[in-house]
Amino acid sequence: MSPTALDLHQDAARLTAQLVDFPSVSGDEKALADAVEEALRALPHLTVDRYGNNVVARTSLGRAERVVLAGHIDTVPLADNVPSRLDEDGVLWGCGTSDMKSGVAVQLRIAATVPAPNRDLTFVFYDNEEVAAHLNGLGHVAEAHPEWLAADFAVLLEPSEGEVEGGCQGTLRVALRTGGERAHSARSWLGANAIHAAAPVLDRLAAYTPRRVVIDGLEYREGLNAVGIEGGVAGNVIPDECTVKVNYRYAPDLSEEQALAHVREVFDGCGVAEPTVEDSSGAALPGLSHPAARAFLQAVGGEPRPKYGWTDVSRFSALGVPAVNYGPGDPNLAHKRDERVDTRLILHCEERLRSWLTA
Amino acid sequence: MSPTALDLHQDAARLTAQLVDFPSVSGDEKALADAVEEALRALPHLTVDRYGNNVVARTSLGRAERVVLAGHIDTVPLADNVPSRLDEDGVLWGCGTSDMKSGVAVQLRIAATVPAPNRDLTFVFYDNEEVAAHLNGLGHVAEAHPEWLAADFAVLLEPSEGEVEGGCQGTLRVALRTGGERAHSARSWLGANAIHAAAPVLDRLAAYTPRRVVIDGLEYREGLNAVGIEGGVAGNVIPDECTVKVNYRYAPDLSEEQALAHVREVFDGCGVAEPTVEDSSGAALPGLSHPAARAFLQAVGGEPRPKYGWTDVSRFSALGVPAVNYGPGDPNLAHKRDERVDTRLILHCEERLRSWLTA
Repeated sequence: MSPTALDLHQDAARLTAQLVDFPSVSGDEKALADAVEEALRALPHLTVDRYGNNVVARTSLGRAERVVLAGHIDTVPLADNVPSRLDEDGVLWGCGTSDMKSGVAVQLRIAATVPAPNRDLTFVFYDNEEVAAHLNGLGHVAEAHPEWLAADFAVLLEPSEGEVEGGCQGTLRVALRTGGERAHSARSWLGANAIHAAAPVLDRLAAYTPRRVVIDGLEYREGLNAVGIEGGVAGNVIPDECTVKVNYRYAPDLSEEQALAHVREVFDGCGVAEPTVEDSSGAALPGLSHPAARAFLQAVGGEPRPKYGWTDVSRFSALGVPAVNYGPGDPNLAHKRDERVDTRLILHCEERLRSWLTA
Repeated sequence: MSPTALDLHQDAARLTAQLVDFPSVSGDEKALADAVEEALRALPHLTVDRYGNNVVARTSLGRAERVVLAGHIDTVPLADNVPSRLDEDGVLWGCGTSDMKSGVAVQLRIAATVPAPNRDLTFVFYDNEEVAAHLNGLGHVAEAHPEWLAADFAVLLEPSEGEVEGGCQGTLRVALRTGGERAHSARSWLGANAIHAAAPVLDRLAAYTPRRVVIDGLEYREGLNAVGIEGGVAGNVIPDECTVKVNYRYAPDLSEEQALAHVREVFDGCGVAEPTVEDSSGAALPGLSHPAARAFLQAVGGEPRPKYGWTDVSRFSALGVPAVNYGPGDPNLAHKRDERVDTRLILHCEERLRSWLTA
């Protein structure tokens, strides 16, 4: 089944099937990026740029506002679930149906069928979203060509079941270490037990009451949790080191620096060394009060929800562009062998976006 | 350097050197056991038995008391420290000098030179002491031929620097497990954190005051310590299991069952599952009030000390035979590349034992 040129005349549901049947596991996106670029270059109302396997296309109509529609073209590895299969209930099965070739199909259809939108549009198709953060194509574009991403508002077509998910939580993971002194456990008074020294760390975690923060009408629930603990030398040795790994998921009213300061404060006086930051990704504000966002919400309908996981909306947020997640896939089916998408939701999202951009 | 017959006419210091130059790493004791058996069979006042690579010899003089002199003939692996070397200060260097071929040399010398002791004597030479407990030759003899070990008192010639170390602590290691429920750490309220649930376990360990117990004038200091802790699934997952490994070193007034009952009691109400016993070796009473022990103490002199580590005296204790450690080696040098022994201490121990058994 050799991939062929993308047919943007078919509806977004059929186009999703064609995209799913065009495998593009992370690291292997070149052929699909080529096909996307070729299809977009055929559209005279768009200017097309490429950076690596990332393709960016834009209208230049001089509108008062510019919005971004963004999606990643890679998928997790296939799991005997390609080619796609449409069942009798109108559900399309296969790798990437939900995450997020259905979203990419909607992007491509808007690009092909809305030549004169009421807002200038920037379409971003990027690679390597499903792998390590430093490989992420959107990150590479943001670094090399931030001007390509300049906009008033961005919609990331990640799976959200056709609901608007605003902003995203930040995540910080730190290692907290307690120390001690080794000794034979038969003569424990000659040593100092680093695992016992971790008791106050666990006490504070157990007693911690996470915040609930309302921003733009969305409630973000935080969490401060041990996600790992490790200590011990041998069955007869008093351990001299214990490490607790703590993950703080925080609301988008905090910066990365503020989040770290909070963690330091929580464990102040616990006898732990300065926290070592193992992972930090900032939160993103929902930006729902921006005029473009309000018009978007009105057009797509429904009640916006907070996004609890971390997504690439945070990269737009870091560039000063408010962003939301809005896509036809189901996030709970992402990365699963039985990944699937309801084709009616694909068509619904396509229609809602078109309505917003042509009203 | 092919091993030759053991020469029991030389003093215990020279005999130690011959034994060290006769490698017998655990599992490879047959040749040395053969040599020991041959040397003992040449002594007409002894009856000799053998079980595997364990050799037991005894006098049968109809004395009112019988005492055991016991030692293991294996060593840890060589570390470029054989053959032995006697330096100008009278210190003998090499693998097993302290642990415990110097003790074995003293046993052999007493066997050869005290044909009519004031107490009947049983000499026990056994294998596989330095490896897993289930391989231990003394344990095998105790199981197959407990009558070979019957006695009023036993001296184990493990390294104790020529001081009497009475009895030994017991050791119990258990795993304590807390449970929880996995969830994505961005939605931690959907799960239950098993590491946080371990906080009361560490609190009780940190607050625990170990007992000091005086038995036969010896003070045993106990210890209750976490020797390991482990929990965690991934950096973004609320963990559903955490395991704390706890080692209880207890005084010989407690049985193994009482020690476990105490650990259960300490962690009662902590929310942990029933402790899993990973290792349990009973304590040994010093038995210093026994007449044979008192005469021994008087003969060897010095102040008896409690033994904090676990040793094979516990196996005698389990057979109802009070036992002490008394040997010329230095326990702090055992298992080290620069293992050595002061030859004067070997001769001193030999002379003190002879004095006790011939007075």
